[in-house]
Amino acid sequence: MKHHIDLNCDMGESFGAWTMGHDQDVMPWVSSVNIACGFHAGDPATMRRTVALALEHGVRVGAHPGLPDLAGFGRRVMAVTPQDAYDLVVVQVGALAAVARSQGGSLHHVKAHGALYNMAARDPALAQAIARAVADVDPGLVLYALAGSVQVQAGLDAGLAVAQEVFADRSYQPDGSLTPRQQPGAMITDAEQSVRQVLQMVEQGQVTCLSGELVELKADTLCLHGDQPDAADFARRLHAAFQERGIGVQAV
Amino acid sequence: MKHHIDLNCDMGESFGAWTMGHDQDVMPWVSSVNIACGFHAGDPATMRRTVALALEHGVRVGAHPGLPDLAGFGRRVMAVTPQDAYDLVVVQVGALAAVARSQGGSLHHVKAHGALYNMAARDPALAQAIARAVADVDPGLVLYALAGSVQVQAGLDAGLAVAQEVFADRSYQPDGSLTPRQQPGAMITDAEQSVRQVLQMVEQGQVTCLSGELVELKADTLCLHGDQPDAADFARRLHAAFQERGIGVQAV
Amino acid sequence: MKHHIDLNCDMGESFGAWTMGHDQDVMPWVSSVNIACGFHAGDPATMRRTVALALEHGVRVGAHPGLPDLAGFGRRVMAVTPQDAYDLVVVQVGALAAVARSQGGSLHHVKAHGALYNMAARDPALAQAIARAVADVDPGLVLYALAGSVQVQAGLDAGLAVAQEVFADRSYQPDGSLTPRQQPGAMITDAEQSVRQVLQMVEQGQVTCLSGELVELKADTLCLHGDQPDAADFARRLHAAFQERGIGVQAV
Amino acid sequence: MKHHIDLNCDMGESFGAWTMGHDQDVMPWVSSVNIACGFHAGDPATMRRTVALALEHGVRVGAHPGLPDLAGFGRRVMAVTPQDAYDLVVVQVGALAAVARSQGGSLHHVKAHGALYNMAARDPALAQAIARAVADVDPGLVLYALAGSVQVQAGLDAGLAVAQEVFADRSYQPDGSLTPRQQPGAMITDAEQSVRQVLQMVEQGQVTCLSGELVELKADTLCLHGDQPDAADFARRLHAAFQERGIGVQAV
Repeated sequence: MKHHIDLNCDMGESFGAWTMGHDQDVMPWVSSVNIACGFHAGDPATMRRTVALALEHGVRVGAHPGLPDLAGFGRRVMAVTPQDAYDLVVVQVGALAAVARSQGGSLHHVKAHGALYNMAARDPALAQAIARAVADVDPGLVLYALAGSVQVQAGLDAGLAVAQEVFADRSYQPDGSLTPRQQPGAMITDAEQSVRQVLQMVEQGQVTCLSGELVELKADTLCLHGDQPDAADFARRLHAAFQERGIGVQAV
Repeated sequence: MKHHIDLNCDMGESFGAWTMGHDQDVMPWVSSVNIACGFHAGDPATMRRTVALALEHGVRVGAHPGLPDLAGFGRRVMAVTPQDAYDLVVVQVGALAAVARSQGGSLHHVKAHGALYNMAARDPALAQAIARAVADVDPGLVLYALAGSVQVQAGLDAGLAVAQEVFADRSYQPDGSLTPRQQPGAMITDAEQSVRQVLQMVEQGQVTCLSGELVELKADTLCLHGDQPDAADFARRLHAAFQERGIGVQAV
Repeated sequence: MKHHIDLNCDMGESFGAWTMGHDQDVMPWVSSVNIACGFHAGDPATMRRTVALALEHGVRVGAHPGLPDLAGFGRRVMAVTPQDAYDLVVVQVGALAAVARSQGGSLHHVKAHGALYNMAARDPALAQAIARAVADVDPGLVLYALAGSVQVQAGLDAGLAVAQEVFADRSYQPDGSLTPRQQPGAMITDAEQSVRQVLQMVEQGQVTCLSGELVELKADTLCLHGDQPDAADFARRLHAAFQERGIGVQAV
Repeated sequence: MKHHIDLNCDMGESFGAWTMGHDQDVMPWVSSVNIACGFHAGDPATMRRTVALALEHGVRVGAHPGLPDLAGFGRRVMAVTPQDAYDLVVVQVGALAAVARSQGGSLHHVKAHGALYNMAARDPALAQAIARAVADVDPGLVLYALAGSVQVQAGLDAGLAVAQEVFADRSYQPDGSLTPRQQPGAMITDAEQSVRQVLQMVEQGQVTCLSGELVELKADTLCLHGDQPDAADFARRLHAAFQERGIGVQAV
């Protein structure tokens, strides 16, 4: 019976003259953020501003390393080797850690972005390389990973604390994976239903998957999608539901 | 009467499939290296390999942050603001520090690259921003700066240890600046003359500038150019001359 | 007594997942567009979509080549040589021309972007290199250049048709240059005053500069800023004023 | 009974300060070159110089478009859609065509690079998108495609002339595909054996595959690998063998 959960959000996804997300609006509602590190989004100035905003709100700062694909926003699968992934994570984590340190803060966690996240959820070699990269840079960092995925085990094997991540607006498959976005029913667009799914995951440690079966799940941290126009609204709603049930929002 | 000097060299300037420099050959002859951090050269794998090579040789590892200009190798002046420069230095220093840490090493110093180095030598606001960035990330880092330039003072003002850098293959102007490359006599191509200039700088703290005048100069660290075919040869020669005179080679 | 003018607008400035500008809203109001070519903005898909939108509206398609500075949106001055500028313009013009051709359209003009535009307005060698690049790729292209600037002469010298460009929302200096943005009075924020300035330029071939003097000016094409929220509104207003005075809007 | 063949080589693969390949040495021995277009290699200056060198030698100029992956040299598979591939090919072909035109030359053919080439050889949708892109930009261009692959048919379906490409230094599989590089026997390192394989392909239209079976094959153009130190030597040897047998070297 869990009585608290972390709310995380991907932020700092602007780049140069281009703006993305509603970081200012969503920051008050989350307990941790995953900040882009320049390879798929997030130029150095955006990294600085986003870290400053997080520190101002007492929100935990995480690195959100992605594939080197600015044009594709890190969402396109690339055939990177485990060594590539290791190297990509080391430098991106280091860059964001320095930004945090330069402002008197510190890095709390690492969550892979986009295609790298999805690949790490399925590919043990990639997951191990990423976990090792994080541990080699700072063994005190928390690894955020898709609940139940191979990345969770890879993180534990590397000696890291792992936060299992769940989603409010995505439906699940019997094996605990997310329904692929292209399939019908992948997205949960009804806010009520999203809140119900979250409560079920937090309070009961399980989720009713798309086919109706119940799947066991550990819900340490919930991902809010900050790029949607109603992101702050949904966050507010979630907070209200949590308060009613006595569920606290706090970082892992 | 100085009895030792640091020999530094820019390294890790390969990128992806492209190779530059003779890092393997030159590494045994230097006491510190400045490693590119991905913005003008140096992909994550190159950063890892170069740090490993330095650690293997007991050579001090420095970050070599540059302008975001891969096509121009960071050599083209860009109108970056002091804030831009601050941000660029923080993330690049952080990235390389993480690579060093992931291998059980640590970062020792920071030296700006190319156009950023030259701009910081002349522009106090830029120099201060860079010095502040270094100090904000890690006040224990040494700042390498053109001997006698405004960057030296900026580093000291920021509370950093500063290593004043001199050049073996460049002639000097009466104000202590380097003769611009386009001007006749800018480059010293004779190895003998280069060695003599270095000895004069190290032992007497002065250099005979192009016009014949003597200029006072502090020579804490000497830059070897590792991209020249005879880089290792010249380094060997320099070591021989140092040994004869009882001048030790060691990091600052 | 001019009876028509071209209205141009910079478009296609999105990049990958990032959106910029109000291309859909503004397209109906302009007679020509300058489309980013991938170096400061505009990925290949954005180029395709923007060309398609222009062709659909019967709007003339132009290339808008910029400096290779995605993070700085091509707005930061870079020390490019005339040869650099030549090369940058050739490949960017070629890329956009191919996009136009692939859709059964053709390229009409070229206008340099941001810092490259400003540098070409002042630097004859750069202006000549750009003009030569355009003429070498296709001598039938029109060169858009700041009215009265050295780029106008460079274009004519290269045998190109030149459209002299004026601005509605910028004040002018006695030498015909734009008041630098940092100076007070640089921007004209009152829509009425903007319209008056445009009419004066179109009908009388002169503009009252910030100090009150009258400056001669040729107004072939007027630049609308499409990234401002009220861009379409202002365009509508301008059209109304033009219609009243019998001034037609048409490409050069 | 073929009496001539095209010799092609990938060139212009330098980038900024980084040099790759032996373009000067190999150019005299080939009849066509595939020039990188900036996305995986080849900055605008390199494109210009390489086109100039080809025109000087009377060698046919082709575009060599690749995936947008500078760090990976376009060799890493990326999950690009057919539309992505279409867009990538249009802009890259356009860029190189403009460089050729600016020097009084013209574009002759298009050959996809690296991972894009391999993906197009197997994936009909991708192959069709690329062929359509080429035809939409200029239906007179020749498409170079792996002999016997789906890309050959896609090119013909798009109304293009297609040159089927064979390799001297790679062994073949019974289905006509190349033995994957990771498998033993993939590379033919003996120059004699390479020459024999080429003669068999050119004169008999077949190749003895790794398992000993004979496979039918059309050999319109042979790819020389210009990044190998002995590239020019091997080319010379091939020319001698061709001369002996009365086989001419000429572009398709």
